[in-house]
Amino acid sequence: MKIAFIGLGIMGRPMAAHLLDAGHELTVYDIAAIPENIAARAATAGSAKEAAAKSDIVILMVPDTPHVEAALFGENGAAEGLSKGNIVVDMSSISPLATKDFAKRINDLGCTYLDAPVSGGEVGAENASLTIMVGGPTDTFETVRPLFETMGKNITLVGGNGDGQTCKVANQIIVGLTIEAIAEALLFAGKAGADPARVREALLGGFASSRILELHGRRMVERTFDPGFRINLHQKDLNLALTGARELNMGLPNTATTQELFNVCAAHGHVGKDHSALILALEEMAGFSIE
Amino acid sequence: MKIAFIGLGIMGRPMAAHLLDAGHELTVYDIAAIPENIAARAATAGSAKEAAAKSDIVILMVPDTPHVEAALFGENGAAEGLSKGNIVVDMSSISPLATKDFAKRINDLGCTYLDAPVSGGEVGAENASLTIMVGGPTDTFETVRPLFETMGKNITLVGGNGDGQTCKVANQIIVGLTIEAIAEALLFAGKAGADPARVREALLGGFASSRILELHGRRMVERTFDPGFRINLHQKDLNLALTGARELNMGLPNTATTQELFNVCAAHGHVGKDHSALILALEEMAGFSIE
Repeated sequence: MKIAFIGLGIMGRPMAAHLLDAGHELTVYDIAAIPENIAARAATAGSAKEAAAKSDIVILMVPDTPHVEAALFGENGAAEGLSKGNIVVDMSSISPLATKDFAKRINDLGCTYLDAPVSGGEVGAENASLTIMVGGPTDTFETVRPLFETMGKNITLVGGNGDGQTCKVANQIIVGLTIEAIAEALLFAGKAGADPARVREALLGGFASSRILELHGRRMVERTFDPGFRINLHQKDLNLALTGARELNMGLPNTATTQELFNVCAAHGHVGKDHSALILALEEMAGFSIE
Repeated sequence: MKIAFIGLGIMGRPMAAHLLDAGHELTVYDIAAIPENIAARAATAGSAKEAAAKSDIVILMVPDTPHVEAALFGENGAAEGLSKGNIVVDMSSISPLATKDFAKRINDLGCTYLDAPVSGGEVGAENASLTIMVGGPTDTFETVRPLFETMGKNITLVGGNGDGQTCKVANQIIVGLTIEAIAEALLFAGKAGADPARVREALLGGFASSRILELHGRRMVERTFDPGFRINLHQKDLNLALTGARELNMGLPNTATTQELFNVCAAHGHVGKDHSALILALEEMAGFSIE
């Protein structure tokens, strides 16, 4: 299948490489320079429009909602290069509500749309072990599934357009708030005089156990905050949750407070650290560190 | 070993039964009537003092801090019946700070003290699969370990006196806040138009996964809120966290908000439901249910 791949950053580069490894013909486009290891094996285009015009499927992997809108519907955007029957697959993590609008506009051109955000980060992209949460029509999903399988492992059609992005937001709410929960628990334990490392170990066998307690709990105890998944990216994702919640007329109280704690991290220069460094905000507030 | 067992409620009854099954000689005391299946196999005492006087080890399993204080140091309390070298084991879930005081007062009598709260609930008590988090001296822990092994599976010496209770509070913070996180995520997903059941399934394979997403996420989707672990018990535990945090001069922002949400549940008559019914508070606030 002829594929246009738009966005070759930290995530897009290894994902495009997996598609090339599987023998697919790629035309790539990025507003920045194309990485050499991709440029050597793929055709390059001067615009998203040109890449789309040469392809059956357009995959996007860009930072946020405005970048998807520009790549699809901006001047020389992919929409101008689409032919009827083409498929647009947005693997970026963006607004679920904007996604429903983008999908409708793509449908109006006689094309189908999948929102297919991922979790697993750079490591998951490199190892082709991404979790992929998909929204869109079942037959389109089945057509694209072999491509997803070159990039990820846990691939689920969650529902219609927007539901993939909604699922990703739900994922980031749970991950962020679980990190915050573990930070409150370990800081409380440390301030009460217990050894946070031994508390974490005792809890690992019980009902409070999770991968997040295992990995991020260890990061908090061992003070290894090199990313990983950066706080400023998690801030972007919780912003999608909070903006979405406001548009939906509902409250997300602990998501809101967790975002505030990420803001406290930002105030102290920690936004480039791993999101487990959320504990630094609580430590600043308590005037006490478990270090 | 001769054991005094004080407190034969929902938890204490099956725990005492496991000790009897293992061949230990028990003298039991409760301010309420002794259950028949225990009374038929154990000696009964008219006070905690009398039970303690006949035993080497005194085990307590009562509701909260004041009950432990009364059973130990009240009129005809266990302290009056202790001999030098006896061991007091408090398996109730109570204040870590009060525990340090109780341990000191017991030490002053020439006895040793373990705080050994459990998690796993009624089912864990029945199945002898409780998680037991212990604080106290290592040699006392080793002496009592065979008794713990008749009642539980995941048994950890976390540190000195109070650290077992601190670990239990940390456990309840993580469990409560993870339930709240999942409730926010599934409610957001449902209000955004996705199917919360499919979102939960998609997330189970990824980094957001946990036993709590598996069990309590399913309860939220299937609306099965029969306890389980009752909201009013979790309110007690988060109160220990918040009271402790205030005494320690630190903030637990999401623990505080989660307690408020349990209070919203109470306002609507849900305190007897399983703690996964926390989602009902968010649903009341949003005027929307995922049911």
